[in-house]
Amino acid sequence: MGNSRNTLTLSVIAILFTLATIAGSAVAGNNPVDERWWPSEFGADDQAGAVKYITPEKRVAAAQLVKKGKTATLGMPYYNNMPLVPGRTYALSIPGGGTPTHGPLNWPGQQFDQTFMDELVTAEIGQVGTQWDGLAHPMIRVQGAEGWKDGNYFYNKHRLEDVGSPRGLKKVGTEHVAEIGFFTRGLLIDVAALKGVTRLDKGYAITMADYQAALKAQGVADASQGDVVLFRTGWNSLWKDYNTPPEQRAKDNAEFTSGEPGVSPEVCDHLAARKISMIGSDTWGLEPYDFAKGMPESFAYCHMNLTVRRGISNFENLDMDVLSQEKAYEFLFTWSPLKLVGATGSPGNPVAAW
Amino acid sequence: MGNSRNTLTLSVIAILFTLATIAGSAVAGNNPVDERWWPSEFGADDQAGAVKYITPEKRVAAAQLVKKGKTATLGMPYYNNMPLVPGRTYALSIPGGGTPTHGPLNWPGQQFDQTFMDELVTAEIGQVGTQWDGLAHPMIRVQGAEGWKDGNYFYNKHRLEDVGSPRGLKKVGTEHVAEIGFFTRGLLIDVAALKGVTRLDKGYAITMADYQAALKAQGVADASQGDVVLFRTGWNSLWKDYNTPPEQRAKDNAEFTSGEPGVSPEVCDHLAARKISMIGSDTWGLEPYDFAKGMPESFAYCHMNLTVRRGISNFENLDMDVLSQEKAYEFLFTWSPLKLVGATGSPGNPVAAW
Amino acid sequence: MGNSRNTLTLSVIAILFTLATIAGSAVAGNNPVDERWWPSEFGADDQAGAVKYITPEKRVAAAQLVKKGKTATLGMPYYNNMPLVPGRTYALSIPGGGTPTHGPLNWPGQQFDQTFMDELVTAEIGQVGTQWDGLAHPMIRVQGAEGWKDGNYFYNKHRLEDVGSPRGLKKVGTEHVAEIGFFTRGLLIDVAALKGVTRLDKGYAITMADYQAALKAQGVADASQGDVVLFRTGWNSLWKDYNTPPEQRAKDNAEFTSGEPGVSPEVCDHLAARKISMIGSDTWGLEPYDFAKGMPESFAYCHMNLTVRRGISNFENLDMDVLSQEKAYEFLFTWSPLKLVGATGSPGNPVAAW
Amino acid sequence: MGNSRNTLTLSVIAILFTLATIAGSAVAGNNPVDERWWPSEFGADDQAGAVKYITPEKRVAAAQLVKKGKTATLGMPYYNNMPLVPGRTYALSIPGGGTPTHGPLNWPGQQFDQTFMDELVTAEIGQVGTQWDGLAHPMIRVQGAEGWKDGNYFYNKHRLEDVGSPRGLKKVGTEHVAEIGFFTRGLLIDVAALKGVTRLDKGYAITMADYQAALKAQGVADASQGDVVLFRTGWNSLWKDYNTPPEQRAKDNAEFTSGEPGVSPEVCDHLAARKISMIGSDTWGLEPYDFAKGMPESFAYCHMNLTVRRGISNFENLDMDVLSQEKAYEFLFTWSPLKLVGATGSPGNPVAAW
Repeated sequence: MGNSRNTLTLSVIAILFTLATIAGSAVAGNNPVDERWWPSEFGADDQAGAVKYITPEKRVAAAQLVKKGKTATLGMPYYNNMPLVPGRTYALSIPGGGTPTHGPLNWPGQQFDQTFMDELVTAEIGQVGTQWDGLAHPMIRVQGAEGWKDGNYFYNKHRLEDVGSPRGLKKVGTEHVAEIGFFTRGLLIDVAALKGVTRLDKGYAITMADYQAALKAQGVADASQGDVVLFRTGWNSLWKDYNTPPEQRAKDNAEFTSGEPGVSPEVCDHLAARKISMIGSDTWGLEPYDFAKGMPESFAYCHMNLTVRRGISNFENLDMDVLSQEKAYEFLFTWSPLKLVGATGSPGNPVAAW
Repeated sequence: MGNSRNTLTLSVIAILFTLATIAGSAVAGNNPVDERWWPSEFGADDQAGAVKYITPEKRVAAAQLVKKGKTATLGMPYYNNMPLVPGRTYALSIPGGGTPTHGPLNWPGQQFDQTFMDELVTAEIGQVGTQWDGLAHPMIRVQGAEGWKDGNYFYNKHRLEDVGSPRGLKKVGTEHVAEIGFFTRGLLIDVAALKGVTRLDKGYAITMADYQAALKAQGVADASQGDVVLFRTGWNSLWKDYNTPPEQRAKDNAEFTSGEPGVSPEVCDHLAARKISMIGSDTWGLEPYDFAKGMPESFAYCHMNLTVRRGISNFENLDMDVLSQEKAYEFLFTWSPLKLVGATGSPGNPVAAW
Repeated sequence: MGNSRNTLTLSVIAILFTLATIAGSAVAGNNPVDERWWPSEFGADDQAGAVKYITPEKRVAAAQLVKKGKTATLGMPYYNNMPLVPGRTYALSIPGGGTPTHGPLNWPGQQFDQTFMDELVTAEIGQVGTQWDGLAHPMIRVQGAEGWKDGNYFYNKHRLEDVGSPRGLKKVGTEHVAEIGFFTRGLLIDVAALKGVTRLDKGYAITMADYQAALKAQGVADASQGDVVLFRTGWNSLWKDYNTPPEQRAKDNAEFTSGEPGVSPEVCDHLAARKISMIGSDTWGLEPYDFAKGMPESFAYCHMNLTVRRGISNFENLDMDVLSQEKAYEFLFTWSPLKLVGATGSPGNPVAAW
Repeated sequence: MGNSRNTLTLSVIAILFTLATIAGSAVAGNNPVDERWWPSEFGADDQAGAVKYITPEKRVAAAQLVKKGKTATLGMPYYNNMPLVPGRTYALSIPGGGTPTHGPLNWPGQQFDQTFMDELVTAEIGQVGTQWDGLAHPMIRVQGAEGWKDGNYFYNKHRLEDVGSPRGLKKVGTEHVAEIGFFTRGLLIDVAALKGVTRLDKGYAITMADYQAALKAQGVADASQGDVVLFRTGWNSLWKDYNTPPEQRAKDNAEFTSGEPGVSPEVCDHLAARKISMIGSDTWGLEPYDFAKGMPESFAYCHMNLTVRRGISNFENLDMDVLSQEKAYEFLFTWSPLKLVGATGSPGNPVAAW
């Protein structure tokens, strides 16, 4: 009975682990020993990372992209039955017990009082739905490597065993990036439109050729320093219609989490070299997966090489459909994570304007 | 034993109720029977309200306020010991059981694995810390008034008894405003600076004379349609230093929630007439209170007259200290609530740029 | 978008609602107007109900059933992936952030410190897993009936609209029964053994003939005042093996909640007449259902006629397999709900001894 | 900003840590190196501990203590404002959004429907209020000791680093004891009555002389194998009256958690030698503390020497007032923790019968 939780919490992630063990092949450039990834170019004590690539000049230029006065909000709806990585929770309820949450409070001398409603949420609030992976989410675990102290390492070599804490991590928490916020050029790479499909196939890896073809088709220049670069795969079409009846919703959720199209290592390496401030997509995990077909060599490649090594954060489960319809490929991207002290990520609903 | 919860949950709000019952005096203009506040000017079915005052032209003009390329994020930090209205909860923990939350996941052929951390939060997430009161938060309760069906009425006469639901309200939830988002001119009214104080006195009501003096001192024009107008009172100085030791923190939290300076009815009426899209402050409840001195006539006046009657939402517990230091009185304000389906509010960390 | 939660939270209960509307036929004796069910025989103010049927003499006699010194605990395991009525949550995590939850705390002068672990749970704690339905769970809703004030009525005519409260109901909460507790004779009715099956068919209604045949086969007398009567159907065999792999678990959970065998109205009426103190079963909802086949006339019959009308509470998702194997048909049943003030139910793990 | 959580979550436990560091003196017999405390006498793989001291003969004898047919439930009420060790949470709400949690569900052809209420709880459910410390709660942390692998060790040398898991510990979880349950003789040691006080002084350590004087005054024999031994100090009188107004409640809660009377090392050693199955008290932490006076040498002595070393669990925040009033010093104690898989403890409301 004692070891049964292992089975019960077997999840996508656990499946990945199994597959990874089987696969066993090395990925070129993946080995963090090959390069020294700290101290950060922002300093040995830095806890905010690539958001610092955004300069005042970049901000002024980004604001000037707002010509039509149009906006779109890029978050997906959060609701109790939305797709979740197995093991995570999102539960919203409205406290009341058959009454308003607060009140009635008297409005003197009137037949009219004041009452108020609240909502109560329990969730891995920075890791469910539309969510931003902060610098306290992914780690490289090192075991028995020469010259290393064993442990789990965040961005800038902050070690979990040194900064872990039950009520919020002591370093690299979300609040450090949230002090600054993103106000910069956004660049849409609309691969679903390029390929003329509702959604890319599960496991499809977006290549440099795709990336360059999309830039060309869209008539926009390559990413430059401080940009937020967003990939549209159409994968969130499995989630989007939240009037879907429960049985179909359950099927769509299962399909949604069974894999996804995603960004290949070569594209992540390119964007890292361009010094972007953030990457994002309309998928739950950024990289391409098709778990039924086995473990990809590129597993979590971008998480490790962008976020852990370079402090370039990653925004998941975005909705770029309005941008696509409007052919708004360049826009002002503006958003900040919540100042959740010691958290690993943040929910969000960024505003794009053009 | 049965009626003991009454006592236990006795809170600021309950105290208000008691005081209100004692006070008994009417407030001019407060009686919603005096005027017909529905259908909304945005239509009988509207669920989004005054965010719709923001036009494309307004957005373009607001973007042009970004001249220096400076930004500030206006949220306060969220942490387990921050001040809360009594009865509410904010509890963040980091799941792990002595290990990372997820992983290790193998990186093929290496001594380097991948691990991940999550955070788990339980909170009235739209009603704690820096939080935006959506249109599903305040209600006017009507009992025994001629021509009314008894009940609790939100903006645009949506009745709780018709739209209530245990897992999210069926109408006027946060998602409706979050589909649109705020991208507009922000206007700071720095009353603390005007008066030359760290924070205004508890219970101090900001008058029209104060409002006009601040505009003049700051060299900015009166609010115009679609603006977000933010009042700085300095009250959040009681919260801000979150390195405060626990005992002092407990004292500061008690003082923070025992009352606050706030915006007077005449100023709210003026801003309603100017058709602003949102009001905000660095206080927990917008209106002026000093509970030890009794019940103010203006209790919840702005909540009722701006939000319930006009769909003008209200942002609480903001931090405008950087704007004040930088004398950034006019700026691009950009933010959207989370698309929390059926929720009453949203957490937030708006980005101001100038 | 506004009415989508209706669809999303469509659940077993919502399906029942739809079916009920279609069915439309009346159930004899079901109409609470036919009989006056208050004040309770325990007094007009009573909030504890049939637990008061247990007398000191009954307790002494029940203790004398302990002859072999054997015991069984009758709860099922609670784990994150256990079957849940749709819409409910059970999420346990272990706070730590890669470290113990508390500590290290120094043990003076030693290489040995002290550390501690906690668990954090979010759940409808009285309504998930093995759970006891208290008197604040089921209600009869009355609309437009002559001589009634509209509303939702608990046991002893306590009206939700009068006793509702967001942080715990003001009356008939779990604490009232928990002050007393159950210490009485337990009676197992092992219908699965009687029929020689692992589990009864979904929708099977246990009849008086079954009840009497079981008593005879087991060699025990009919229920008497104050007894706790437990029905074993074998339905929890779908849940029990919690080493079940996730995919099979998902299937078993779906089957588990798609219906169940249960107790027929005639048996509940008989037990009510015998003045038992509690009924229980190894099913999630007591009464027989097969939702694919339509709405049963007996829907929630026992909940309404035992609990609301008579204060006889109901224990769900128990595990009587050890009792069955040991042929322990009569035993000392001992348990009390938690003193969860204002709650609707309680988790539990009763101890049976014989 | 990054290290501020340290300050914020500074708690009783953190204070202890500070004091411990200052104190620095060794406690005789405290050093686990002095004795080999594994494998458990119940086997190297045992995960249940001293509950196994209870034999069938013991159970039969315990049942025979029920002569009057009286019972008492020994739990305290759980409510949102009850005293908590700093950093922990208890939040109960009633989902509804102004309506019942479930329903209405139609009762065919009637003006009478069915509706249901739930409660939603977020809490360290096994570590708040009346709570049982299971074998997965306390650990001895070993750092740099010869012959040890560094780490945190539970009962029977189960090492956190091996059995930790974010969704429930893989070993020594609550479910292992909950499979068995406690059904045994209970022994009350009423020290508050012995001393003739409402409550013992904060920091008072109950000595062997006290223990023996209480046995004599009560006319009962010393503890024997399998007993549950409960100490009444009166400390819970600070908690008990939950109609206490909020301000007094806040003061009482502060006093309650600022220290407590408790059981001295010599008494714990004596009870360990008597092979009791569980110890309990009406305090939050068992051992004597007065934090304002400094760190006691006996800090967590019983937790370490009873639970970690011997598998004797510990029940906190019990209420023995009825037992005291009734002079019920010997009784049948019956209770089992919930089968919370992988949890560190359990809430409870044991039934005592005599």
